Amino acid sequence: MAVSVLDMSMSLDGYVADSDDYLGGVDGERLHKWADDPGTAGQFQEEWDAAGAVLSGRRTAELMDHWGGDHNGNPIFVPSHRPPAPAARWGYPLVTYVQDGIESAMAQAKAAAGDKNVQLRGGAYTVREALAAGVLDEVQIHLIPVLLGRGRRLFDVLPAEIELEIVEVINTPAATHIRYRVR
Amino acid sequence: MAVSVLDMSMSLDGYVADSDDYLGGVDGERLHKWADDPGTAGQFQEEWDAAGAVLSGRRTAELMDHWGGDHNGNPIFVPSHRPPAPAARWGYPLVTYVQDGIESAMAQAKAAAGDKNVQLRGGAYTVREALAAGVLDEVQIHLIPVLLGRGRRLFDVLPAEIELEIVEVINTPAATHIRYRVR
Repeated sequence: MAVSVLDMSMSLDGYVADSDDYLGGVDGERLHKWADDPGTAGQFQEEWDAAGAVLSGRRTAELMDHWGGDHNGNPIFVPSHRPPAPAARWGYPLVTYVQDGIESAMAQAKAAAGDKNVQLRGGAYTVREALAAGVLDEVQIHLIPVLLGRGRRLFDVLPAEIELEIVEVINTPAATHIRYRVR
Repeated sequence: MAVSVLDMSMSLDGYVADSDDYLGGVDGERLHKWADDPGTAGQFQEEWDAAGAVLSGRRTAELMDHWGGDHNGNPIFVPSHRPPAPAARWGYPLVTYVQDGIESAMAQAKAAAGDKNVQLRGGAYTVREALAAGVLDEVQIHLIPVLLGRGRRLFDVLPAEIELEIVEVINTPAATHIRYRVR
């Protein structure tokens, strides 16, 4: 049975990107610098390879030009109340806009993933919607030892408290990698 | 030489208290529940005992009624541009309001601490001021596996990025305890 996973690199002060959607720092990639180390990144390769579909917030999908039409070969589901923009209406057979809510989008993504996982991609709005609808199963945070001081937060206001369970912690000098199960 | 330490329990979504200054959850203490376990709390007792003075934001100091006049016997320094309220003007010999800035308050707190440490107590404003002035040496975060969804954040907007160094990570089921050195 597919599980849905949110995998994000976050600064200690809660940001996943700076205000211009770069990933922080002088080179614009501060939050992903940890993944330059093949040994560390290798520990997460198995998880990344386990993805069989992506559910992406619309803003993220559009910022990424829909990853060219698929996400490493996997289909992409975008929950949105508005119809897709022209690029996504034309010729992206693996991109599906879902207009009847995030539960429906996740059900379609899980069906497409089969026995693989669904990767959630998105900013605060999509994360909040997924948490509020109860369709996010796991959260993998790469907590980066930096205070960015400003930018786009991963977690927005929620309608209620949500308990997590710590599943695994991997310590490296470049990040504290914590995997949670959503209760 | 005294070091200054900020020791806080923070939810994964960055909150250190709910909007009413409770520590979250049904019993109002969700963020400090981890400290109920004597084994876990014992690992931090040495650090807490190493405090020789407290530098507290004014709001925190006032919410706590200045801890009755001292913090476990230690003197309390409160940086504030305004003069102290009546309770702190009368008869609290160990409470010192410092009106010429947080650098001065920290220098006085370190002098009072001698070879012990200065504990920083405060919300986002005081943390930001201390970081911006470069007077915070270490950050001990107890990262709690819960999304509170709303409340008071520990980290506010900063004038610049600040790099941290991971000094130690202690994993328990109730929290991920990460100690950072401020670079």
